[in-house]
Amino acid sequence: MTQWPRLNMAAGPVEVSPRTLRAMSRPVLYHYDPAFLELFSRTEGLLKRVFRTEHDVVILQGEALLGIEAAAASLIRPGDKVLNLVSGVFGKWFQDFIDRFGGETIELAVPYDEAIDPEDVRRALQANPGVKFLSAVHSETPSGTVNPIREIGRIAHEHGVITMVDTVSGIGGELVSPEGWGVDVAIAGPQKCLSGAPGLALLAISPAAWQAMEHAKPPLTASYLSILDWRRSWIEGGKFPYTPSVTDIYGLEATLEQALEEGMEAMAVRHQAIAAACRAGVRALGLDLWPARDEIAAPCVTAVKIPPGLTDEQIRGTMRDRWGVMISPGYGTLNGKLIRLGHMGIAAHPTTLAAQLAVFERTLKDFGHPVQLGAGVGAAMDALAWP
Amino acid sequence: MTQWPRLNMAAGPVEVSPRTLRAMSRPVLYHYDPAFLELFSRTEGLLKRVFRTEHDVVILQGEALLGIEAAAASLIRPGDKVLNLVSGVFGKWFQDFIDRFGGETIELAVPYDEAIDPEDVRRALQANPGVKFLSAVHSETPSGTVNPIREIGRIAHEHGVITMVDTVSGIGGELVSPEGWGVDVAIAGPQKCLSGAPGLALLAISPAAWQAMEHAKPPLTASYLSILDWRRSWIEGGKFPYTPSVTDIYGLEATLEQALEEGMEAMAVRHQAIAAACRAGVRALGLDLWPARDEIAAPCVTAVKIPPGLTDEQIRGTMRDRWGVMISPGYGTLNGKLIRLGHMGIAAHPTTLAAQLAVFERTLKDFGHPVQLGAGVGAAMDALAWP
Amino acid sequence: MTQWPRLNMAAGPVEVSPRTLRAMSRPVLYHYDPAFLELFSRTEGLLKRVFRTEHDVVILQGEALLGIEAAAASLIRPGDKVLNLVSGVFGKWFQDFIDRFGGETIELAVPYDEAIDPEDVRRALQANPGVKFLSAVHSETPSGTVNPIREIGRIAHEHGVITMVDTVSGIGGELVSPEGWGVDVAIAGPQKCLSGAPGLALLAISPAAWQAMEHAKPPLTASYLSILDWRRSWIEGGKFPYTPSVTDIYGLEATLEQALEEGMEAMAVRHQAIAAACRAGVRALGLDLWPARDEIAAPCVTAVKIPPGLTDEQIRGTMRDRWGVMISPGYGTLNGKLIRLGHMGIAAHPTTLAAQLAVFERTLKDFGHPVQLGAGVGAAMDALAWP
Amino acid sequence: MTQWPRLNMAAGPVEVSPRTLRAMSRPVLYHYDPAFLELFSRTEGLLKRVFRTEHDVVILQGEALLGIEAAAASLIRPGDKVLNLVSGVFGKWFQDFIDRFGGETIELAVPYDEAIDPEDVRRALQANPGVKFLSAVHSETPSGTVNPIREIGRIAHEHGVITMVDTVSGIGGELVSPEGWGVDVAIAGPQKCLSGAPGLALLAISPAAWQAMEHAKPPLTASYLSILDWRRSWIEGGKFPYTPSVTDIYGLEATLEQALEEGMEAMAVRHQAIAAACRAGVRALGLDLWPARDEIAAPCVTAVKIPPGLTDEQIRGTMRDRWGVMISPGYGTLNGKLIRLGHMGIAAHPTTLAAQLAVFERTLKDFGHPVQLGAGVGAAMDALAWP
Repeated sequence: MTQWPRLNMAAGPVEVSPRTLRAMSRPVLYHYDPAFLELFSRTEGLLKRVFRTEHDVVILQGEALLGIEAAAASLIRPGDKVLNLVSGVFGKWFQDFIDRFGGETIELAVPYDEAIDPEDVRRALQANPGVKFLSAVHSETPSGTVNPIREIGRIAHEHGVITMVDTVSGIGGELVSPEGWGVDVAIAGPQKCLSGAPGLALLAISPAAWQAMEHAKPPLTASYLSILDWRRSWIEGGKFPYTPSVTDIYGLEATLEQALEEGMEAMAVRHQAIAAACRAGVRALGLDLWPARDEIAAPCVTAVKIPPGLTDEQIRGTMRDRWGVMISPGYGTLNGKLIRLGHMGIAAHPTTLAAQLAVFERTLKDFGHPVQLGAGVGAAMDALAWP
Repeated sequence: MTQWPRLNMAAGPVEVSPRTLRAMSRPVLYHYDPAFLELFSRTEGLLKRVFRTEHDVVILQGEALLGIEAAAASLIRPGDKVLNLVSGVFGKWFQDFIDRFGGETIELAVPYDEAIDPEDVRRALQANPGVKFLSAVHSETPSGTVNPIREIGRIAHEHGVITMVDTVSGIGGELVSPEGWGVDVAIAGPQKCLSGAPGLALLAISPAAWQAMEHAKPPLTASYLSILDWRRSWIEGGKFPYTPSVTDIYGLEATLEQALEEGMEAMAVRHQAIAAACRAGVRALGLDLWPARDEIAAPCVTAVKIPPGLTDEQIRGTMRDRWGVMISPGYGTLNGKLIRLGHMGIAAHPTTLAAQLAVFERTLKDFGHPVQLGAGVGAAMDALAWP
Repeated sequence: MTQWPRLNMAAGPVEVSPRTLRAMSRPVLYHYDPAFLELFSRTEGLLKRVFRTEHDVVILQGEALLGIEAAAASLIRPGDKVLNLVSGVFGKWFQDFIDRFGGETIELAVPYDEAIDPEDVRRALQANPGVKFLSAVHSETPSGTVNPIREIGRIAHEHGVITMVDTVSGIGGELVSPEGWGVDVAIAGPQKCLSGAPGLALLAISPAAWQAMEHAKPPLTASYLSILDWRRSWIEGGKFPYTPSVTDIYGLEATLEQALEEGMEAMAVRHQAIAAACRAGVRALGLDLWPARDEIAAPCVTAVKIPPGLTDEQIRGTMRDRWGVMISPGYGTLNGKLIRLGHMGIAAHPTTLAAQLAVFERTLKDFGHPVQLGAGVGAAMDALAWP
Repeated sequence: MTQWPRLNMAAGPVEVSPRTLRAMSRPVLYHYDPAFLELFSRTEGLLKRVFRTEHDVVILQGEALLGIEAAAASLIRPGDKVLNLVSGVFGKWFQDFIDRFGGETIELAVPYDEAIDPEDVRRALQANPGVKFLSAVHSETPSGTVNPIREIGRIAHEHGVITMVDTVSGIGGELVSPEGWGVDVAIAGPQKCLSGAPGLALLAISPAAWQAMEHAKPPLTASYLSILDWRRSWIEGGKFPYTPSVTDIYGLEATLEQALEEGMEAMAVRHQAIAAACRAGVRALGLDLWPARDEIAAPCVTAVKIPPGLTDEQIRGTMRDRWGVMISPGYGTLNGKLIRLGHMGIAAHPTTLAAQLAVFERTLKDFGHPVQLGAGVGAAMDALAWP
């Protein structure tokens, strides 16, 4: 049987705190047990605070992708114009959903090491009257980049456009705010910066988005993809549309509690500090970062170009098998071009950063890459702003 | 904070063994970690043995209902004739999915305390040439009844009809066999007789069902509802269509291991023995069972008519709040007519049966219902065949 | 590998709540980690409240027996007269310790189905001037009996005698109070009515007892048996005499928290209600209780005489191996004469009582003993006073 | 509530694997449950293999110190001559026990940064005819040094002397062998290199030691300090002398299983490799090691002299409170002179070593100590021999 890794420094699912893991081992309750109903409601309350929103929140019982498809399925109808912002693999992927539900895609794309310029969004909306929805990815985990959702959201709202934003790996790395950022459907997940387990999609729905779902012709109901079911059945009627994933809800409650104990602002500052230190460490090793500019580098992962002469398998395979540190490869079309050093959730910590870089350095050196052992760790620790 | 119950004797999610709960508290792995890939494959192998099938198995990352909708979404196309068997709430529910995906429903219905007669299926198929799919519920948890799927499946296959069977609460209570029973798409869940946690849909897909999915116009791909994605991406390509629910997979592996250690035959015998004893106990209390005949009573729950003069809230509320035993109400249109004494998974045991009946008796008596305390427990223990 | 039981209804160690078990799976801290120091102190505070005392408490890092021997080792010196009250196996056992440390035993004994009469204690103290210590067992788990410690302690104090009381299975079953009962060294354990795990000895030490330990010639220090080490090193100096059992302390903290959430009075009432119901159930089966009178029957276990024609192995072996219910045999000289139905900690609950009696009845009947199935459970549930 | 640390790099108790922690959360069994009896015996079998011995093993239900005192209590009688080897705090401590049980101490001492020379042992034994016992510490955790027990043990045996060896932090760091090393009573603990939880003392007893215990005048029985009780009661009679610490036994079983899966030789090599790398890292920072020579430096902890101008509180307090890394201070008379970087059990790994050193460097630098950040980590990773 394959040895388990010592450190999961991947791009998600990430390490989960022992406390959350213990919470997930609580006895399984019947979903209509009064204790579970209470726990579920309390969890929704915590989720609102983590989202920093007064919008309704909805917890879909499947991985974050379910939330993304559900947003499309619940909103987009044949002929609807959707401005899809593409700065990476995930942004591009969304077009599949626009297509499936009959939308008409207007694509605004940049190279995958870049971020969307809000002014381009403005221009696109001006050039394309009648755009109904805008879809965007806050944090493009595959590229290790972030888009300026706040500015984009505001411009969209100025144009009366409803926004759907994938902030799965964004929340926790920045101070997300649906209202402040003009996000009508925010889709998050527990398994990235929040340090939870995968298996749930976390949504915050603005009144405008609810209205759009109710007015969709026809509204999507009686489906695993329906967000409205949760409004009509659960929020208004106290009945679950289907059996919730009890154990995952236990984990989510614990995850959110810990997030709020730290504070969402402190959590964002921490991720950003570790990410900046990681970049300093990588540069000190003479390696190139994938994102074109530091300003758009993600707090959640640091994407590093694979140095000439080395392969993804060599670096990642050795780090995992010999040193017990699991990192992530490039995803989709980026595979083979970069590796990703993760620093999300509880793994966004000086100890795990130092461990990861130390093992990375040694691996590079053992494959003949000219590296001064300790240079990366030293530069990272030197650059690290820590309370 | 509401006190948790002592015993979860509900109609599912049911009690999960401490061993499975511990398995669910293992550290969360990156889904492409070699240790997770190995674990996932091993779990699929265990699932085949639990299904007693050589068909491909697919684990969808959402509650069992996702599997049911996915089957409809992957198979049914506009104009397809679907013979839908309705002997309860769940059977009726399936029509929503037939409608959504454009199928034409031919309904074969019986009262909800009855089961489908296979000969009626034969007659319906003869009367309706061109039926492409048959949908059926093996174990109607809301009614505490079972349908004779083996006979129904064989008749369907004689007519070249592809079958979709919800055996979510059926597997483990009887010796299910997709090949032997003529089931093309079997949909199960861990959270009933298998004693696992909710959050996954377990499917076994016959070659004919795969072919029908591939030939659907168009095939459903790139969707959370797609079963084909798992074939093309995972089975053939080793890539997950999306992030699996790592913790739930840990739980499933442990759940299946324990099922196989007991043996599927022993598990079915155990559920049937406890169910028979439960019925004996209920009858000794002078109460009426909901199912019209013992032959169609489900191994998973015993549905009991609420005695005149008492209410669901009185019985269930008192059992839960005062005595710590959670049982289930009637579901949907059956609400208020019956209560359900659960005996699934590890709760299908003499100790939990006796505890449940003892508390049930005392509750009835305290509300003035004429009951000889001990009569139900005694009759149940007397009737109990136990190895 | 032997199957684990479904219910641990033994005379201790008993079932531990899932919450406590989870607490015991927390990461192991260095014992001088500030978080552990804080946790240890907090646990001592909780222990005081569970003991309902203002006395110092000491947690020895070994099973309760360590606490009993430590009391003897710390107090008794050659020539000291000790009045040892013997109403069972444990009381008799204490003489070994008096002997080891050179004390002179004055024994006051009654048959093992009886309890000590406080007036006999008074007479013994009057007849034996110069008695320095009195040793007594509050709850004689092997006999299922309790001694009237409150009255005994007061009489001892009137005579200036220092008392050592084993209340390992007594605390939680009655409202123990060192001050109110005149107990100078109270020795408890987590693994009985408190529903914790075994491995620690819990002591409450009166000022008089401290003084006696300090004045012992010589005082016992620098030993695993020393109670004074904990005073001098830990209470006064903040240094542990040796490494504490970190995991057991986690478990103790959780155990005590749950005890206090229930309330010590409610806990005692619960144990007594279940014990009374258990006795009613046993009597309804036509069996004889071991204790001579109900007034001295213990809240923690019900000792039942083995019916003629049956053996301990038959009853206990079948209950354990076939039905999954573990109960206890007679201990020491009582072995073969009685069995003990446990109802301590979380197992002092109607559900577990009913389950235990149902399985007991069936076992008796299967061995040919004339029993009306359900009679015991019914009588118990009928007698049960439950809030 | 104080934040828990991220890494426990202390001198023990050390980090425990999640697998062991999960094992410790299994339901608590009655100690005479057949499943527990089986588990206890299996654990003893595992312990023999970890000790690499055919001697009897005894598991005492208290911290390792209990084992050390029990050895003295069970063997030493008034007038017995004991050669006590002192190269550190723990060696000196043993004299308390020799004194308590009436032995006559002959001390062979070296400075606490040195190790015992076997030839000095030979000379001492020749100069002191009639020595009956020799007591020694294998790994002096407080000093980070080891004694050459193999050579010492052989010399003792040549002189017919019975040896008691504290190898609590020695086992796992070197390939201990009671027979090969001439150790009659080996005392180990789970909470150091084996990576288990504290709370048990693990002993291996040679036939000569058993004989000496049986012939002691009087033999020690009926005491928590008695080793003979375990022979007579448990090994020969299948009865526990008192209730074992069920949860701790679960943890021990898991701890030993993992040790044997790794292999005792691989475990020793791993500890030595990490210790050597740690020393290289510390030296690269310009700091001085406490042990006089590398040959006697312990595999379990690296003792480092506190640099002039800095204090223990500054270094350890900052590492713990700001960076989440718990290390150990000097113990007893060594307090304030050194700090100890732990690398025991699962914490003897490159990732934790790098993390610890990175945080140590940064802490030194922030207090103004001239350090090149990364120098220590780099030198350690460079020196690290890893499979």
